[in-house]
Amino acid sequence: MPETAQMSANGDRSNAVDAPAGLEGVVVAHTGIGDVRGQEGFYHYRQYDAIELNRRRTLEDVWHLFFRGHLPDRAERDAFTSEVAGHRVLPGDLVPFLRTLATTDPYDPLAALRTAISFVAQRSGFRSWLDISPDQLYDNAMQISAQTPVLLAALHRLHTGQQPVSPDPELSAVANYLYMLGGKHPDPQRVWALERYLISTIDHGFNSSTFTARVITSTGADLGAAVVGAIGALSGPLHGGAPSRVLEMLDDIASPDRAEVWTREAVGRGDRIMGFGHRVYKGKDPRSALLREVAGTVGGRTAQFAAAVEDTIVRVLSEAKPGRALNANVEFYAGVVLDACGIPRDMFTPTFASSRVIGWCTHVLEQVSGNRLIRPSARYDGQAPPEPVPAAD
Amino acid sequence: MPETAQMSANGDRSNAVDAPAGLEGVVVAHTGIGDVRGQEGFYHYRQYDAIELNRRRTLEDVWHLFFRGHLPDRAERDAFTSEVAGHRVLPGDLVPFLRTLATTDPYDPLAALRTAISFVAQRSGFRSWLDISPDQLYDNAMQISAQTPVLLAALHRLHTGQQPVSPDPELSAVANYLYMLGGKHPDPQRVWALERYLISTIDHGFNSSTFTARVITSTGADLGAAVVGAIGALSGPLHGGAPSRVLEMLDDIASPDRAEVWTREAVGRGDRIMGFGHRVYKGKDPRSALLREVAGTVGGRTAQFAAAVEDTIVRVLSEAKPGRALNANVEFYAGVVLDACGIPRDMFTPTFASSRVIGWCTHVLEQVSGNRLIRPSARYDGQAPPEPVPAAD
Repeated sequence: MPETAQMSANGDRSNAVDAPAGLEGVVVAHTGIGDVRGQEGFYHYRQYDAIELNRRRTLEDVWHLFFRGHLPDRAERDAFTSEVAGHRVLPGDLVPFLRTLATTDPYDPLAALRTAISFVAQRSGFRSWLDISPDQLYDNAMQISAQTPVLLAALHRLHTGQQPVSPDPELSAVANYLYMLGGKHPDPQRVWALERYLISTIDHGFNSSTFTARVITSTGADLGAAVVGAIGALSGPLHGGAPSRVLEMLDDIASPDRAEVWTREAVGRGDRIMGFGHRVYKGKDPRSALLREVAGTVGGRTAQFAAAVEDTIVRVLSEAKPGRALNANVEFYAGVVLDACGIPRDMFTPTFASSRVIGWCTHVLEQVSGNRLIRPSARYDGQAPPEPVPAAD
Repeated sequence: MPETAQMSANGDRSNAVDAPAGLEGVVVAHTGIGDVRGQEGFYHYRQYDAIELNRRRTLEDVWHLFFRGHLPDRAERDAFTSEVAGHRVLPGDLVPFLRTLATTDPYDPLAALRTAISFVAQRSGFRSWLDISPDQLYDNAMQISAQTPVLLAALHRLHTGQQPVSPDPELSAVANYLYMLGGKHPDPQRVWALERYLISTIDHGFNSSTFTARVITSTGADLGAAVVGAIGALSGPLHGGAPSRVLEMLDDIASPDRAEVWTREAVGRGDRIMGFGHRVYKGKDPRSALLREVAGTVGGRTAQFAAAVEDTIVRVLSEAKPGRALNANVEFYAGVVLDACGIPRDMFTPTFASSRVIGWCTHVLEQVSGNRLIRPSARYDGQAPPEPVPAAD
C-alpha cells in the first residue's frame, strides 16, 4: 500500500479507524426507538416485540408509541386519532401542482412523492430544527407522516385520470388510505391485512433510509429535507425497491411444479433471487413469517402458490449455497399481501414509504437531542499529491 | 450498562464496533477523488494541490478533472465546454413549474432547488443506476451539474419578479451563471473572483452532503435522488447554511474598533462565532487563506474590515480558548467574496451548491463501482424487550 493510502481524510494517522464495507455491524448511534437482533430473528419497537405488538394493536397505537414513547390509553388514543386526522389537510390547494407531477411522462410515483414532500415542506415554512421549538418540530413530523399517504393517493388518482378523494376524518389511518386510493369504503379484511403490513414496516434499525434521514438531520436541516433524502434512499432497489419484482418473479414461475427448475436455472445463471436474504437477518425474517400468515388469510391461491414457491426456493438455495441461510425476507410476502389488498404494483414501494415515514420522523426527533454532525472520513488511494499542476495548453 | 445495551442492531455481540460520535475519523470508503489533511491545512483534488489548481485552471478544467479523472488538453477542453453548454438546456419548458416554487410564500431557494431537481430527474426519466449503462449515468451527472446553476438563476429571477435569462453557450460556466442571475454580461474581475470560490468548494472529503449522496446511491437509487438528498444535507446550518450569517455578524460588529469588545462579549455569553472552527482543519483552512486574498482584490473596504475582524477574533479566541486553534473557515471570506461578486445573500448557500454538485456527482460515479449497501447498526439503550404488550383499553 503506498504511503498516501495510509493517510485518512482527517490527516491524522493515529486516530483513523477503518470501518467494514457498508458500515456493516458498525454502531453509529444509540437509540431508544427499537432494534433488530438478526441472529435471533427478532425485532422490537421500544420495549415490545414488534410482532406481538402488531397482532394486538392498531397503526395509530403503534404510531403513538413511536412519537410519544408509550402506548396510549383510551383518552390519549382519541386525542391522537384526532390529531392525525387534522394533520391530513394539505397546506392549500396542491392539486394543480400534484397534477403536474402525476401527468408528466415518464411517471415514477416515488420520485413524484419526493418532489411533492419537498414542496410541502417549503410551502409549510419548515425551517432548521436549530431555529424552531421542539413542539414545532414534532408538528412538522406529525404533518409529514399524516400527509404522505394523502399525497400518494392523490398522485395515484391524478396519474390514472381520476380526481383525488379527500381524506375522511372518521376513518382510521389505514382505512382512510385505501379509501383515498380506491374512492370507496374498503373491505375490513383488507384494512386488517394492510394494517399488519404497515405496522411491520415502520422501523427496522439503522436501515439506509433511516440513516440518511439522521445524517441530513445532523446538519441542522429541516425535517422535510431529511424525509426527502430518505425517500430517495428507499427508492433504490437494494433497499425498498423490489416488492413488485417478487410478483413479477411469481408470474414468471407461473406454476408450483415449475418452481424447482426455475430456481435451479436462476442459481445456475448467478441471478439474484428477489425476496430472499437480508443484510441483518441470517436466519428467519420475523416479518416474512407474519406476512405469510396474513397472505394466507387474504391472498387466496396466489398466497398458496407463493408459500409453495418459498419452500422450494429455500430448499434449492440451501442445497446450492450451503451455510448461507437464504430465507424469505419481508419483501417476499409483502407483494402478495399488497396485491390482495388491491394496491397497484407501482404503489408497492410508495405504500412502504407511507409507514416507514413514521419511523424516519421518530429518528429525526431522536437525532436532534444530543446531535453531533455526522461527518465520516475516507481513505485516499489515488495518485499521490501534490503533483505540479501543468500549465493549460 | 444493562444487558440489552450490549446488543448491537445486528444482534451479534462479537462483531459490533462502536464508532466515535458523528463518525469522526472513521474511514467509511476508499476514494480516488481527493482528500483533506486537516493537521497540515492541505486539501487536494485527485493528485493536485487544490489551491495550486485553483490558481492555474478554470472551473471547466477542474470539472473535467473530476468527471474524467485528468486535466484536459486543448481538444478535450473544447469538447467538454461544448458538452457542458449543451447540457444547460432544461428538459422542456419548466418556467411554469419553477414560477410556482419561486412565488410560493414562504420562499427558500435551497428548498426550491431541491424540489426543482427532484422534478427534473423524474421528467428526464432518471432510473436506478442498476438499470442503466455507465454512459447514461455519466450523462445524468453532467445534466444535473450543468443545470443546477440554470435552475438557481431562474428561480431567483422569478422570485424577484423578473423573467429567467436563457444560458449563453458562448460563456464560461461561471460567466454564464452571473449572466443568468443579473441579465447582463458580467465584469471579468467578478467572474475571476467567483471562479476561485466555486473551484475551492467543489469537494472536501466525506462531508455530510457528499456522504449522504453516497449512502443514497448505495441503495441503487437514481442520481437525482442522491443529489436531492445532498442538497437537503447542505441546507443545514452546521454544514452549508452559514455564509450569510458571517455578513450579518460583520454588520453587527459594524466597525473594526468594536471587534474586540464584540468578540469578548460573544465568548462570554457562550455564543458560537460564525465562520470559525472546522471539524477537520485544526489549524488553518487553506480555502480561507485563498479567499482572503480574493476578497482583498474584489471586496474593497468590506474585505479590509473582514481581515481586521478575523485577526481580532483569532487573537481573542486563542486567549479565551487556548489549545482549540479556532481559525477562520471557508465561510468567513466566502460571504465577502460572494457579496463583492453581486450574489444576493439568500443565494450564498445555493451558489455553494452550484459547485458542490460537481463533487456530489463525481462521488455518485465512484460509488457505483464496487458498491456495497451502506447500512450501519445502532445500539439500543431503551427499556429491555420483550415486555408483554398490554391489551388496548
